[in-house]
Amino acid sequence: MTASHDVRVGFIGSGFARRVQLPALALVPGARPTAIASGHRANAAAAAQEFGLPHVFSDGVELARSPDVDLVVVSSTPDSHARFAIAALEAGKHVLCEKPMAIDAFEASQMVTASEQHPDRLAWIDHELRYEPNRRRARELIRSNAIGELRHVELSLKPYLRGDGRPQAFDAPWNWWFDAARGGGILGAVGSHLIDLCRFWSGSEITHVAGLVETFVTERKDETAAVRPVTADDYASCVLQTGSGAVATITLSTVALHGPGHLGQVTGSEGTLLLGGETTLELGKSGGPLEDISAPDDLWEQTKPNNMWARSFVRLMREMVQVIGGGTPQGEPATFRDGWQVQRVLDAIRGGRGVQLD
Amino acid sequence: MTASHDVRVGFIGSGFARRVQLPALALVPGARPTAIASGHRANAAAAAQEFGLPHVFSDGVELARSPDVDLVVVSSTPDSHARFAIAALEAGKHVLCEKPMAIDAFEASQMVTASEQHPDRLAWIDHELRYEPNRRRARELIRSNAIGELRHVELSLKPYLRGDGRPQAFDAPWNWWFDAARGGGILGAVGSHLIDLCRFWSGSEITHVAGLVETFVTERKDETAAVRPVTADDYASCVLQTGSGAVATITLSTVALHGPGHLGQVTGSEGTLLLGGETTLELGKSGGPLEDISAPDDLWEQTKPNNMWARSFVRLMREMVQVIGGGTPQGEPATFRDGWQVQRVLDAIRGGRGVQLD
Amino acid sequence: MTASHDVRVGFIGSGFARRVQLPALALVPGARPTAIASGHRANAAAAAQEFGLPHVFSDGVELARSPDVDLVVVSSTPDSHARFAIAALEAGKHVLCEKPMAIDAFEASQMVTASEQHPDRLAWIDHELRYEPNRRRARELIRSNAIGELRHVELSLKPYLRGDGRPQAFDAPWNWWFDAARGGGILGAVGSHLIDLCRFWSGSEITHVAGLVETFVTERKDETAAVRPVTADDYASCVLQTGSGAVATITLSTVALHGPGHLGQVTGSEGTLLLGGETTLELGKSGGPLEDISAPDDLWEQTKPNNMWARSFVRLMREMVQVIGGGTPQGEPATFRDGWQVQRVLDAIRGGRGVQLD
Amino acid sequence: MTASHDVRVGFIGSGFARRVQLPALALVPGARPTAIASGHRANAAAAAQEFGLPHVFSDGVELARSPDVDLVVVSSTPDSHARFAIAALEAGKHVLCEKPMAIDAFEASQMVTASEQHPDRLAWIDHELRYEPNRRRARELIRSNAIGELRHVELSLKPYLRGDGRPQAFDAPWNWWFDAARGGGILGAVGSHLIDLCRFWSGSEITHVAGLVETFVTERKDETAAVRPVTADDYASCVLQTGSGAVATITLSTVALHGPGHLGQVTGSEGTLLLGGETTLELGKSGGPLEDISAPDDLWEQTKPNNMWARSFVRLMREMVQVIGGGTPQGEPATFRDGWQVQRVLDAIRGGRGVQLD
Repeated sequence: MTASHDVRVGFIGSGFARRVQLPALALVPGARPTAIASGHRANAAAAAQEFGLPHVFSDGVELARSPDVDLVVVSSTPDSHARFAIAALEAGKHVLCEKPMAIDAFEASQMVTASEQHPDRLAWIDHELRYEPNRRRARELIRSNAIGELRHVELSLKPYLRGDGRPQAFDAPWNWWFDAARGGGILGAVGSHLIDLCRFWSGSEITHVAGLVETFVTERKDETAAVRPVTADDYASCVLQTGSGAVATITLSTVALHGPGHLGQVTGSEGTLLLGGETTLELGKSGGPLEDISAPDDLWEQTKPNNMWARSFVRLMREMVQVIGGGTPQGEPATFRDGWQVQRVLDAIRGGRGVQLD
Repeated sequence: MTASHDVRVGFIGSGFARRVQLPALALVPGARPTAIASGHRANAAAAAQEFGLPHVFSDGVELARSPDVDLVVVSSTPDSHARFAIAALEAGKHVLCEKPMAIDAFEASQMVTASEQHPDRLAWIDHELRYEPNRRRARELIRSNAIGELRHVELSLKPYLRGDGRPQAFDAPWNWWFDAARGGGILGAVGSHLIDLCRFWSGSEITHVAGLVETFVTERKDETAAVRPVTADDYASCVLQTGSGAVATITLSTVALHGPGHLGQVTGSEGTLLLGGETTLELGKSGGPLEDISAPDDLWEQTKPNNMWARSFVRLMREMVQVIGGGTPQGEPATFRDGWQVQRVLDAIRGGRGVQLD
Repeated sequence: MTASHDVRVGFIGSGFARRVQLPALALVPGARPTAIASGHRANAAAAAQEFGLPHVFSDGVELARSPDVDLVVVSSTPDSHARFAIAALEAGKHVLCEKPMAIDAFEASQMVTASEQHPDRLAWIDHELRYEPNRRRARELIRSNAIGELRHVELSLKPYLRGDGRPQAFDAPWNWWFDAARGGGILGAVGSHLIDLCRFWSGSEITHVAGLVETFVTERKDETAAVRPVTADDYASCVLQTGSGAVATITLSTVALHGPGHLGQVTGSEGTLLLGGETTLELGKSGGPLEDISAPDDLWEQTKPNNMWARSFVRLMREMVQVIGGGTPQGEPATFRDGWQVQRVLDAIRGGRGVQLD
Repeated sequence: MTASHDVRVGFIGSGFARRVQLPALALVPGARPTAIASGHRANAAAAAQEFGLPHVFSDGVELARSPDVDLVVVSSTPDSHARFAIAALEAGKHVLCEKPMAIDAFEASQMVTASEQHPDRLAWIDHELRYEPNRRRARELIRSNAIGELRHVELSLKPYLRGDGRPQAFDAPWNWWFDAARGGGILGAVGSHLIDLCRFWSGSEITHVAGLVETFVTERKDETAAVRPVTADDYASCVLQTGSGAVATITLSTVALHGPGHLGQVTGSEGTLLLGGETTLELGKSGGPLEDISAPDDLWEQTKPNNMWARSFVRLMREMVQVIGGGTPQGEPATFRDGWQVQRVLDAIRGGRGVQLD
């Protein structure tokens, strides 16, 4: 039973929203899903039926302006994020926007502008890893000087599993994810999170960017078996430096066939943090062994899929609902301005291949 | 007992040569150490006494010209490599030169010139990983299409153990290794090997370089407890692209406190190669598990230190002695021209930090 | 005598506005200056008295919101442009913003956002060279294929005279112009115009940027004779490439002691355009001599100062007043989005020095 | 009448050598042309007949080793410079090598090596502008502080006339000059001189390089009317910074249809030097007018063609003959090491287009 002061949540997009976000909302007290929009109205209607949502739209802008929605979750393809997020803010709604925030830093900065024009509305990016217990604990340990001065970070993802738990095998059928113009690609999908994590951990902005993206599988068949060109990246690797002097190396591959999944190592002057997969965190002091200090995840097996993204999304949504209700954030959510900082790094990685030798 | 047609080997440098190379020579039939040179003549004399070498020099150029030497192993600090290697070639000697080959690509190209002026003399770089059984097997598997088209490679070393087996703790005393002017730093010491490995595996040159080096520990005490500035890098990370389109990410840290040591993953379109530490190689086909296909190392525990560098050095030296004796190379030794190609990449990594954002 | 339907113009800033823009307004039928704002209220008051303006403000935002203003001319220091321009647009005013548009592309994009949120309001950048007769004629000739395919452009300014006609001698006293944080420097002041001109002429965006800025005079005395550091550039040089394949080289110096002033050469496949100083345009066909085709300037000696900036400002203002009154633009004014494109190029020039050799 | 101790000069290449260098030699006392080589032996033979040379070769290496030659002038296509220059040095000959020195910095460094292996032989690059009276006077004035601290230099060439005085019209027939693989292009042909001039004037090396080359005319007909692709650059523009902090902008166009030809402006903190065309030099102090201080050229109208290149070549050759005879250089000839420094800059300009915006 929902109360009249529930936060009424509308979803733009019927893919990730239906698979992950709508199920997760059941775990967020004070939030009530009320609407869904999709350019493919049938998809929206099916999701509405499944989750009992009273309002269905075929245009995200209509949802953004609907009087039956307080918080708009923008889960459509990235090329539409700016339009929907700005419409929602202008309609006085709170916004949670999926990543990658936008197509480029220009769009991202337009979204920042809209958010700062409505300072009483929340405008957050769904960088839910800031609410993942181990990554948040890492932040606290770094801040409390547990590993001394932050020096370097390595983050990698090999192989790649989609956020919904489905494997992104290298023979995945063509969809928008493989289309750069719609905002596809691994760099935006996952790199954006990891770049944000480097900022979150270091408390510092990225000042230098070196690296590149690549597309190894240049054609894929779509659902009708038609061959389509792949324009989005399926691989990205970069070296970043922050204003604080720390260096981060991020490597992402959707074409890797094996590997440990997510892996992260953080080196400070006095110790090491090691993130293994989605659930383990180890701490080692200089000269000592690594010890398991994994934070418990109170939502273990409560979400579908049962992965860190879904569980962390629940926590981020709980925080958002609380803050909308007047509470103070317990964590450090990523604002639209954070998203813009990340987007500039994405743009710079895409823009160059470094020094040419021949 | 040595024969009159033994290859007589002279060593310039008394550090690595004494700890690793001279002991290794006992495992190289047909090679006989005859001379050693060091600017610190006492060091050379001590090594000569330990290994029964008849000739001691205080100047590497004298050794290079000595009639008692057929093959000159240049193991002095990198700032002196060009001078000694060129002198040896001009004196008609074969040369094995330690890495990093030189201070910069200009010196390296001078060495190439000298080597190509003496095409009947061998001029090799001690990139002994080309003779490490697993890395050589990886080369063969890639060449025989066992993993399909080569796509991306990740190579890392965390933490760093010196080639002689001693740990390079982050409180190592200052020596030439921390002096950029003498050719110190992790990028030259280990990065050169890994860059060469990418060339060896891909059969292709590096065409684009993005990355940076950093010095996190900026002062160290020398043996007299005097504080000395560190000018050489203690960290390096880079993303490289080859002419064949493959991408490699190499990350090296002497300040990392934990980690798996050497780790390498090679992703092809059809499979994966995983190099763990110094001794294991796994192969996985698409959709299948990784399986241990480690190559046996016939020199296991026969060298001091018992590490892949020392064992591979023995094999490289055996090959070199055989080729000097008229044999055909069984492997693919790195020539001076290979070394130059690597050196240009080192220069490019040192030269830039990528795109500046603010 | 002014009519009730005059466009009422308010000026934020009392320097350039007082010296150039307010006098120019006398030549703009249908425009009536009504207000001026300056953080130094006395300056604003003095200008108001000189030009008979009824309204004086000490805060540009107040002017922006004043019911007595229809068009806000933002002539304050560039670090305040975004704030004032956005405030004016939000208050429903038309805006003409001086260059450089903003401190960086982020601010510029915020201004674009505001302008696109108010599509019925004009939001123009004062790139008045688009209304300079010779430069506009050059545009028409290029468009009509008079010189064939556009190939390369060289634009330079040596030495530098300020837009108000006063020489910017290299011993100019320190003021905001020498402070990067306030938006000073020759690149923003003049480079922005010339970059825009390349876009205007080529009809194409800048895709590649190579160059640098430099500060040769690193200290200047301010009006109290106190020595102040100079943080803004006094020299800039860059090579740009457009999407159409044309290349432009722009060189600007405030420290040059001699030279022809403004000089521009445009090379097409079939001919040449040569811009000499502020008043001459020559055209040469392949194989033929250059011939004077200078466009007459109907405002010659009618403005104070009698320079191309002031005269072109009059024309731009006349156009703006006409368009506000419902007319169609006769020229191609620079919009805020044009300004943002220019700003990104400024940012890129400031961000790098190219490939480092040693 | 020639003496037995004359320097016997052999020319490799029969184009520029025949048109410019052989005629010039008549003005060089103590030099006697004795040999010419060309892969097109008939060309060599024709030149030999015209100038009365006793020795004709079809292979430059033979000439380089001929006992009838003391000084080898390498005037063949740049792709052959390294081979011939090194052969000549190894044969104990003095060498004057045309520019561009080589195909890339690697070849150039091989030539440096050869030159430094034969320190008693001269190995000079034909950067004859160091012997052009006005450019040499500029060097002296800069060195004597006549214009204060060197700040910035602009050098341009529009349109382009070949060194032999023939116009390089944009419809020039295809020859090796349009083939990058053979060392063609304006950057190497003229840019090399101007880069060297920046080094000569500043007394400092180039440390940063930003710029690009372009090929606007992508096909040309050869002498048989066959259409050939143009791979070499016909346009180059770059911004360089020296170790001393000076900035240079160099712009070269073979497709420009009009312009002043060579133009150079040198700005110091206290004055200006202006180089107009090939013959005038003006000096202006801060606040004063430019005054003509052109140096007389004692060889005016004595060479064919009567241009600064031919006249300066005579002076450089006179110096070279004197130094071979035991004299001390009066000027500062460009050594092979100078040539290598220039070559690295050429490589860097060709390697990049700066920051990519989209």
